[in-house]
Amino acid sequence: MNIVDIIRRKRDKKELSKEEIEYFVYEYTKGNITDYQASALVMAIYLNGMNNREITDLTLAMANSGEILDLSTLSECIVDKHSTGGVGDKVSLILMPLVASLGIIVAKMSGRGLGFTGGTIDKLESIPGYNTGIKIEEFINNIKEIGISLIGQTMNLAPADKKIYALRDTIACTESIPLIASSIMSKKIAAGANKIVLDVTCGSGAFMKDKMQAESLSKMMKQIGKLANKETVCVITNMEEPLGFAVGNNLEVIEAINSLKGNMPNDVREVVLELGAYMYKLANPETNIEENKKLLWENIINGKAYKKFVELVEKQGGDISYLKDTNKFKKAEFVLPVILNKSGYIYQINAEEVGILSCNLGAGRKKKEDKIDESVGIILKNKVGDFINKGDIVAYIHANDMQKGKEAVQKLEQIYKVQDEKIEKPETILEVIL
Amino acid sequence: MNIVDIIRRKRDKKELSKEEIEYFVYEYTKGNITDYQASALVMAIYLNGMNNREITDLTLAMANSGEILDLSTLSECIVDKHSTGGVGDKVSLILMPLVASLGIIVAKMSGRGLGFTGGTIDKLESIPGYNTGIKIEEFINNIKEIGISLIGQTMNLAPADKKIYALRDTIACTESIPLIASSIMSKKIAAGANKIVLDVTCGSGAFMKDKMQAESLSKMMKQIGKLANKETVCVITNMEEPLGFAVGNNLEVIEAINSLKGNMPNDVREVVLELGAYMYKLANPETNIEENKKLLWENIINGKAYKKFVELVEKQGGDISYLKDTNKFKKAEFVLPVILNKSGYIYQINAEEVGILSCNLGAGRKKKEDKIDESVGIILKNKVGDFINKGDIVAYIHANDMQKGKEAVQKLEQIYKVQDEKIEKPETILEVIL
Repeated sequence: MNIVDIIRRKRDKKELSKEEIEYFVYEYTKGNITDYQASALVMAIYLNGMNNREITDLTLAMANSGEILDLSTLSECIVDKHSTGGVGDKVSLILMPLVASLGIIVAKMSGRGLGFTGGTIDKLESIPGYNTGIKIEEFINNIKEIGISLIGQTMNLAPADKKIYALRDTIACTESIPLIASSIMSKKIAAGANKIVLDVTCGSGAFMKDKMQAESLSKMMKQIGKLANKETVCVITNMEEPLGFAVGNNLEVIEAINSLKGNMPNDVREVVLELGAYMYKLANPETNIEENKKLLWENIINGKAYKKFVELVEKQGGDISYLKDTNKFKKAEFVLPVILNKSGYIYQINAEEVGILSCNLGAGRKKKEDKIDESVGIILKNKVGDFINKGDIVAYIHANDMQKGKEAVQKLEQIYKVQDEKIEKPETILEVIL
Repeated sequence: MNIVDIIRRKRDKKELSKEEIEYFVYEYTKGNITDYQASALVMAIYLNGMNNREITDLTLAMANSGEILDLSTLSECIVDKHSTGGVGDKVSLILMPLVASLGIIVAKMSGRGLGFTGGTIDKLESIPGYNTGIKIEEFINNIKEIGISLIGQTMNLAPADKKIYALRDTIACTESIPLIASSIMSKKIAAGANKIVLDVTCGSGAFMKDKMQAESLSKMMKQIGKLANKETVCVITNMEEPLGFAVGNNLEVIEAINSLKGNMPNDVREVVLELGAYMYKLANPETNIEENKKLLWENIINGKAYKKFVELVEKQGGDISYLKDTNKFKKAEFVLPVILNKSGYIYQINAEEVGILSCNLGAGRKKKEDKIDESVGIILKNKVGDFINKGDIVAYIHANDMQKGKEAVQKLEQIYKVQDEKIEKPETILEVIL
């Protein structure tokens, strides 16, 4: 077997065999195939596509390129959750302790944020003392004791995916549905999941800009799940506007804590309950989605979910006094109101633009090496469909640099789009792909 | 401008601007763009194509990426000739002194062979003493004195093309018509040509396997020539079977010398006269192709072309006693007859297979670093359309290794295909694209 022949075959729209795909993935990981050859093959895959069998083989080869987390001592059924990312997405922080409070094993390795989408791990680290880098033995032990642990990627999981992902970024091959699907699924499989619920975000603030793309990606991941024998459910959720009201690390953690205490924004609640109900159903197939949502909501109301979060934070070394009194979180130096001098119904708050604005304030990373400013961000006061009066405060910018803060105020004024006609609140759950 | 955007645009089938193409070519030559980014762009060009304007801009940018040979002191009209390569192709050795003997300036830099197609420079070096590496000043001076010089690529001509060509080889992107066209034309333009005759070989022993491909390539090179203001004529010639009878370095040089002395195989003569007539017409537009062919043939018959060759070889330091007595050329140790035990009309002598066979005997390079064995090769006794009787000797294998020689005999027996039905001699000149 040789890589030039493999490139030639994909260039000519031929189907690659399992052996050819494995040869590429393993030899590239080992450094025996050059970046420029991998690059040509990735572009050929981008342009000529792969069928479901090829994508599944690519996914499994990437999953098998490094360590595989073995969670079989914890449960026969490990349900994992993943989101394709968005702006204001604090769902994992709420959802994971919530499902753990219902006895679902939560053994989750999360990533850091890059670009305008934040990472769960960065947000957890906003809680002083929370250690996202504990050893695997401790991770497993914590789960045995309290049923949940949330950490960073401490193992060498799917190194082929890491290498291919980094390459794609430099050669304009990020937006490929087969490549996104195999990247996500390979990480989940390497992380020990055997059932997976995927939050496929859709809209300006997501990778998938429209519903057709989100459906294609969902169907492809479903297919990979099926062929790889990992039952998968995809929930397509709205990411045209930011999720909830808070954008920025500390601000989102505070919103998540308040949500666990019962004060949850409507759209956040819809996403949390939908994903949670399917996670619960995957673990308990005889149950019913609507009943599961009630069960989940009950554990918010009765405080069990919040209690599980406190347990988690304590176990990982975090200072739980911050959960009890969220005023303890470090605040930005300047909090600037954003006042609109127009009235009407909000028809757009572009999530991508809000995300970039938050990133520019310091809440995100432009490069991997960048340090995050945990205290900055944006608190929106409204959602699409709300009516606002001229002179209303529609948002607060939290900034540590007055100049950047003022710029953000001006930009956010432009981001809010209003019209005279009344507009329906958009749906949060766009589709469930079973 | 940045390379990721340029890759994305070509990935999306957009037309690249002149500035984008120049940015890529110059920055890649300088090493500011990585191989893997160039690789992704080349694959995107391969799969999504380029229009004539883009290809011309690519050609000119590659031509301008290094030195440009300035031949304006020699003549206002420099006619260059190039062949896309073939098996047994000794045309340049005959044609260049022939047109020089009619007063056409010949300032030619040729390449070395790679794979089964031989290079003119390798063949010239079969003549002891012939120096293909003389300085540019000497090259220009020789042309001023005797009207001709043939050397290797001693200048840094079109380094971008060299880099992209080498890359293409490793990523299965050699067979792209726009990339082949721009590679050829960039080298010719950098080598100072302002009018160009191209021998576009077509058939098993050529890059272009069928006439449609050869026509596409020809039309594209014509278009580049037009847009770059370099008048170009393409002659599509048959390369299904080897050209002439000799394949291998010394053997081909001897056939070329004999041809210059008047003993020229029919197919070689047709190609030499057709290309020569167009070269002469490009330099003297008022002339007529059929008349030009007569003029050229006359200079073979009266010995002027041969005399010019002797002058050339002498000027470059070669031992002209080899021209006078070709028996002086080093012979292979073993000369093995190939006898066919079948009779009939030859309908196929696959040029690629003969080329590979000759390369395996040592006449060609499999890798750039390989040394050539000048004395080995094949002498065919027949051409397609000839009748042979069972027991006839159809060829001689010239080998320095008995084992390899015997294998070659067996293989060549298989390469000759005969049938009972009479078959027409194939056309040598398939089409002229003016």
